[in-house]
Amino acid sequence: MPEIPGETAESDAIARRLCDIGREFYARGWVFGTSGNFSAKVSGDPLRLAITSSGLDKGALNPGDILEIDSEAQVLRGEGLPSAETSLHLVLVRQAAAGAVLHTHSIWSTLLSDRFAPDGGLAIEGYEMLKGLSRVSTHEHREWVPILENSQDYVALSTELSSVLAKHPDCHGVLLRKHGLYTWGGDLAEARRHVEILEFLFEAEARRQLANQP
Amino acid sequence: MPEIPGETAESDAIARRLCDIGREFYARGWVFGTSGNFSAKVSGDPLRLAITSSGLDKGALNPGDILEIDSEAQVLRGEGLPSAETSLHLVLVRQAAAGAVLHTHSIWSTLLSDRFAPDGGLAIEGYEMLKGLSRVSTHEHREWVPILENSQDYVALSTELSSVLAKHPDCHGVLLRKHGLYTWGGDLAEARRHVEILEFLFEAEARRQLANQP
Amino acid sequence: MPEIPGETAESDAIARRLCDIGREFYARGWVFGTSGNFSAKVSGDPLRLAITSSGLDKGALNPGDILEIDSEAQVLRGEGLPSAETSLHLVLVRQAAAGAVLHTHSIWSTLLSDRFAPDGGLAIEGYEMLKGLSRVSTHEHREWVPILENSQDYVALSTELSSVLAKHPDCHGVLLRKHGLYTWGGDLAEARRHVEILEFLFEAEARRQLANQP
Amino acid sequence: MPEIPGETAESDAIARRLCDIGREFYARGWVFGTSGNFSAKVSGDPLRLAITSSGLDKGALNPGDILEIDSEAQVLRGEGLPSAETSLHLVLVRQAAAGAVLHTHSIWSTLLSDRFAPDGGLAIEGYEMLKGLSRVSTHEHREWVPILENSQDYVALSTELSSVLAKHPDCHGVLLRKHGLYTWGGDLAEARRHVEILEFLFEAEARRQLANQP
Repeated sequence: MPEIPGETAESDAIARRLCDIGREFYARGWVFGTSGNFSAKVSGDPLRLAITSSGLDKGALNPGDILEIDSEAQVLRGEGLPSAETSLHLVLVRQAAAGAVLHTHSIWSTLLSDRFAPDGGLAIEGYEMLKGLSRVSTHEHREWVPILENSQDYVALSTELSSVLAKHPDCHGVLLRKHGLYTWGGDLAEARRHVEILEFLFEAEARRQLANQP
Repeated sequence: MPEIPGETAESDAIARRLCDIGREFYARGWVFGTSGNFSAKVSGDPLRLAITSSGLDKGALNPGDILEIDSEAQVLRGEGLPSAETSLHLVLVRQAAAGAVLHTHSIWSTLLSDRFAPDGGLAIEGYEMLKGLSRVSTHEHREWVPILENSQDYVALSTELSSVLAKHPDCHGVLLRKHGLYTWGGDLAEARRHVEILEFLFEAEARRQLANQP
Repeated sequence: MPEIPGETAESDAIARRLCDIGREFYARGWVFGTSGNFSAKVSGDPLRLAITSSGLDKGALNPGDILEIDSEAQVLRGEGLPSAETSLHLVLVRQAAAGAVLHTHSIWSTLLSDRFAPDGGLAIEGYEMLKGLSRVSTHEHREWVPILENSQDYVALSTELSSVLAKHPDCHGVLLRKHGLYTWGGDLAEARRHVEILEFLFEAEARRQLANQP
Repeated sequence: MPEIPGETAESDAIARRLCDIGREFYARGWVFGTSGNFSAKVSGDPLRLAITSSGLDKGALNPGDILEIDSEAQVLRGEGLPSAETSLHLVLVRQAAAGAVLHTHSIWSTLLSDRFAPDGGLAIEGYEMLKGLSRVSTHEHREWVPILENSQDYVALSTELSSVLAKHPDCHGVLLRKHGLYTWGGDLAEARRHVEILEFLFEAEARRQLANQP
């Protein structure tokens, strides 16, 4: 398909940024073993979403590994399969007005997602670091992180994600049980900051609470 | 405003050093998600204090992101807003004779600051590492680290910090509850060493004590 | 002995890849103090297996430190002694159809291997990360990681490994008690991914379970 | 004093190696805040011992920061003060036939040294990693790591160290309570390997045992 030069330059910049995030998150142990996937909007109307191909080592991505898809997950640019979890990205772009979506697998989020799944989510409050989340201006904030049961049925999971977002429109991230974190932001910089903030808070909460479990 | 060349060279050197410290502390996980702020005196009388701008990623600072302010927090050089916590830096420069102030957000300081807030502080004693704090020459030293309740009212917090410093003039650092560490030194090298020493001691104490809490 | 140029090029590429894996695993703390050993098939029939020499610092390997052996552990290329644990590599190549075998010593695998040795192995289930293991397509998978008592008698150990593989033909890794992990794959990329996946799962399980032991 | 060119070349190589070890150990968090000190023999008879100057950041050593002393701790080469703990190095060189001595301050050694000080030492047994210690050829080895009470009186401490070495001539390292590790080897490579091995074992033992303390 024909491409407008301006769009291509934007596409390339976003693809390089997604590769950088992959290397950075891999170094931190958040996307081991080809896990994790990332996306960012190239344009909004009609939607062009840059997204990582399925099954790649996120520590060694090249711009050519980044696809572009439309709102129906049809590939517009690049070769390869979009991640199996593409439908979750599309729900977040649509419903949470996300300009970028980052999905990671860390030890701490994995542990907390299992421990608190029976409660349907995890409350985090009183930390100064909460102010790193968009629209939060005080540590006197109670962040509810919903936890969904994990599933290989991504259609069903998308529906559940959508319903959780409707119920908790102010949340900044969602955990899948024994799976990992989905967070997002208006752009990649904000989504990346949300990963850092939430991972910090997960580590703090896990170290504080898991040592005390019965 | 006109600048004396000598001052400018000094300013530049300090700005670069603050950026280096940002990258180093970011790599250690002490200033995630734009948290943390740093300052260092360029001159003492009248005071010119180099300080990080508000809201920036501390792992990617450039010298242009460093402001200079006077004793009333008026910006003398650079563009941007000084950190919201500038008033705490100014209290430490004035009252603790600090030549440099470093503020970090680590997991261990966050956990300890919450656990020991009801006691008003944390005592650390018997470690050889205590000798890395200025004026401490033996491990048979009891370091009292005061803990303040966190607040978004920085004027009130400055007053409390001032009163805690008056009460504990020999302390080397102060914790804000579920927020982080303020430490300082005669110069940046000493302040940086105090961060390392205190973070080491916090990790040791947290690992020793938190597993045993009731 | 005369070498066919094509084989040499392949040998060199594999040797460099083994050195890279050594540096990477050393940086992660999985092969401290000359521990660990790695192998990969250069050709299958007759078998030529590239394998690390005994007793070297795995963080500082050079291609010249990689030997090639045949199915009887006779050295075909290079100088030095093959690892004392070569017989275990040969069992895995033969019986698990491994194209590459990686052996590491991590803290978490060491701790779990001791704690669960009385049970003969460790079950890991319900994690999305399990899908990073070959032939596993859902988190609803129960991975059994057999644990063998450690021994300095590698002939006896090889026999035991062989019998455990016969009993658990679908396993992806085996632990030696207070010693470390053996995992493998069709090629080096797969074996390396299995190390990452299993180490992630070991850390998660150890952090979840060891704090609760009686 | 006149120097033989050959000795100078050897001195320079050893000084550079000590600086490299400083950077490496600093990156691992073993010598924070100017803690730690290192030495290595340049010649044995008469003794010339290269040793780090007191009070320096071990992550930023230059060859000019390495002194050479004789068996009475008199400085033969370089400017600066030898470490306050020089007398302990000299005891180890003399009595344990050490060619190199490395002293580190890690979290895990600090925690264990306090917990087991009342027992006079810590037994570590059954780990394959023990084979990384010189003269140990099986995991069925019981390593006794003596623990000395910490003191600022280095003369008294030297005497105690000497008496502990006489009592435990086969030990590979000694802990000072809430202070750190002294280990050594025939040369720097062996001493460095002993640090890695012992730190691995300390972390494993601390994680295994400290979570269970009453």
